Amino acid sequence: MLPAIEQELRRQIKRLDAGATRPFHDMLAYHMGWTHGKGATARAGKRIRPLLLLLVSDAAGSRWKDALPAAAAMEIIHNFSLVHDDIQDNSPTRRGRPALWTLHGSALAINAGDALLTIANQAMLDLEKRYPPAVVVEAARILQDACLDLTRGQYLDLSHQDTNRLTLRNYWTMIGGKTAALLSACTEIGAILGGAGGKWRAGYREFGRLLGAAFQVQDDILGIWGDESATGKSAAIDLAEGKLSLPVVYGLRQRGRFARSWTNARTRPKRTTALRHMLEKEGAYDYSARQARRLTNQALAQLRSLRPQGPAGAALAELTEQLLGRQT
Amino acid sequence: MLPAIEQELRRQIKRLDAGATRPFHDMLAYHMGWTHGKGATARAGKRIRPLLLLLVSDAAGSRWKDALPAAAAMEIIHNFSLVHDDIQDNSPTRRGRPALWTLHGSALAINAGDALLTIANQAMLDLEKRYPPAVVVEAARILQDACLDLTRGQYLDLSHQDTNRLTLRNYWTMIGGKTAALLSACTEIGAILGGAGGKWRAGYREFGRLLGAAFQVQDDILGIWGDESATGKSAAIDLAEGKLSLPVVYGLRQRGRFARSWTNARTRPKRTTALRHMLEKEGAYDYSARQARRLTNQALAQLRSLRPQGPAGAALAELTEQLLGRQT
Repeated sequence: MLPAIEQELRRQIKRLDAGATRPFHDMLAYHMGWTHGKGATARAGKRIRPLLLLLVSDAAGSRWKDALPAAAAMEIIHNFSLVHDDIQDNSPTRRGRPALWTLHGSALAINAGDALLTIANQAMLDLEKRYPPAVVVEAARILQDACLDLTRGQYLDLSHQDTNRLTLRNYWTMIGGKTAALLSACTEIGAILGGAGGKWRAGYREFGRLLGAAFQVQDDILGIWGDESATGKSAAIDLAEGKLSLPVVYGLRQRGRFARSWTNARTRPKRTTALRHMLEKEGAYDYSARQARRLTNQALAQLRSLRPQGPAGAALAELTEQLLGRQT
Repeated sequence: MLPAIEQELRRQIKRLDAGATRPFHDMLAYHMGWTHGKGATARAGKRIRPLLLLLVSDAAGSRWKDALPAAAAMEIIHNFSLVHDDIQDNSPTRRGRPALWTLHGSALAINAGDALLTIANQAMLDLEKRYPPAVVVEAARILQDACLDLTRGQYLDLSHQDTNRLTLRNYWTMIGGKTAALLSACTEIGAILGGAGGKWRAGYREFGRLLGAAFQVQDDILGIWGDESATGKSAAIDLAEGKLSLPVVYGLRQRGRFARSWTNARTRPKRTTALRHMLEKEGAYDYSARQARRLTNQALAQLRSLRPQGPAGAALAELTEQLLGRQT
């Protein structure tokens, strides 16, 4: 499926590849990982969202090729959020390369993100060639609802950045509005394109939500304990940048040495190794790993209860396991 | 129609008005002009886009009340672009009040713009309650195409900002991708909701395009020669900020005193009165006013050829005339 996804993505982004806006297209192509950056090779994302959507649509009874525009839409939405996130978080790198805004400035990068969001919506409407308009409207509505959840999650994330008052409960709300929102939209859209209604549709949505939560917790763990050469980010980058991830939120709640050291934002970048050790000592790694395992097991149980059909069903279980075991 | 538009706009933005994202909703309500800002009263926009859409839908045979979600969608898209424009252009004020980003910072304001774009898309899908899904998909597609044109226009605008090499031809392309894109989408969507197909639909689209171009040229004139107390912006703000508007592009092409003085960006804010006089002397005001009149006449002729029905038809002609005569 991956080459077909890549081809559909390029086809969608090509909308901007003409005349005076060709350099604008090239900005998007760079971000999507198709072209080289300064001192870095091309590097694309893992395309987990489109894979998930195609596998669910196939397991639920559609021809996965028909669902390609929807799969591209979800990957492009994800990339829209990355472009704007990097500006908002002041993050200079993305996938081991300079972030788009560092190359072209914030103004043009905001606009590139807006274009990605728009192209994602256009891609979703392209479903009309293969599905009845009522299904297209439904899929578009799920996409929009997920986008609004993204902005809600981002609002909570950005407005908590400096307060250190994020509780564990708020943490789960926040990630519910970020990774989990997009992944549950992928599985729900896959289900309706496969013709699954009622409780099957809701069941696939719940599978995506659990998978998304597991995925985000794993991402939080890798942001602190990940292998630099594999993730393409510097080790413990999330600690240096003060990101409120699950281990940090857990650590702050222990009100121990970590919580006291974390408060001084200025010394964080120099003290990442020490902060990481404190987190380990106070149980944040074990807690987070347990949560990731719990959520993955719940996602797998949910998936089994849906009895997905054929090789796509087996591939879904495999993808879920892989996402937990991943190092990047 | 205006109170009904305002009610529908509030209903759409209310999607964010719950729990932890209530302050996020309030950011949007402030930008929409419903709540007070620091030292400024509430001040909403002119709602020209939704009015235009409702009038065309009515003149083309729909009940305008059914078209309200589409009208709200277009006004919200317009406001999305204003929120991001102000960040991109570093403009501190909007409608005589602090721009959203100056109150909440760029990160949260980028996110607020993303939410507006998403809510606009959701509003458009709300048409499903009154129109068949195929019409909804068509309206959503016109909206998305207009959004992509917006980002194209914005790309050209931002990437020309420092080069001074904008030709008159590029100017018309640029505004084609900004004001004209949204206004032609309003009239085209109004037409299809009214059941107008084929050449009528294309005719209304062209009317919107001409009106949008006339509107933008008038905006450019007001940005240099407008009355400060009426526009809510400081006089000649476009000259101080170095905006490449039609009078400036015309002036640069004369290669006279204005062109030489304009080049020094640092002295511009202090020399706006002198620059304005040079532009007048070199014919930029007369040229721009002639273009605005020409485009308005073309828009009116186009409208007459469509023979819009009933009082909405008469109101459309009146609105077109008003837009040219406006002082704000």
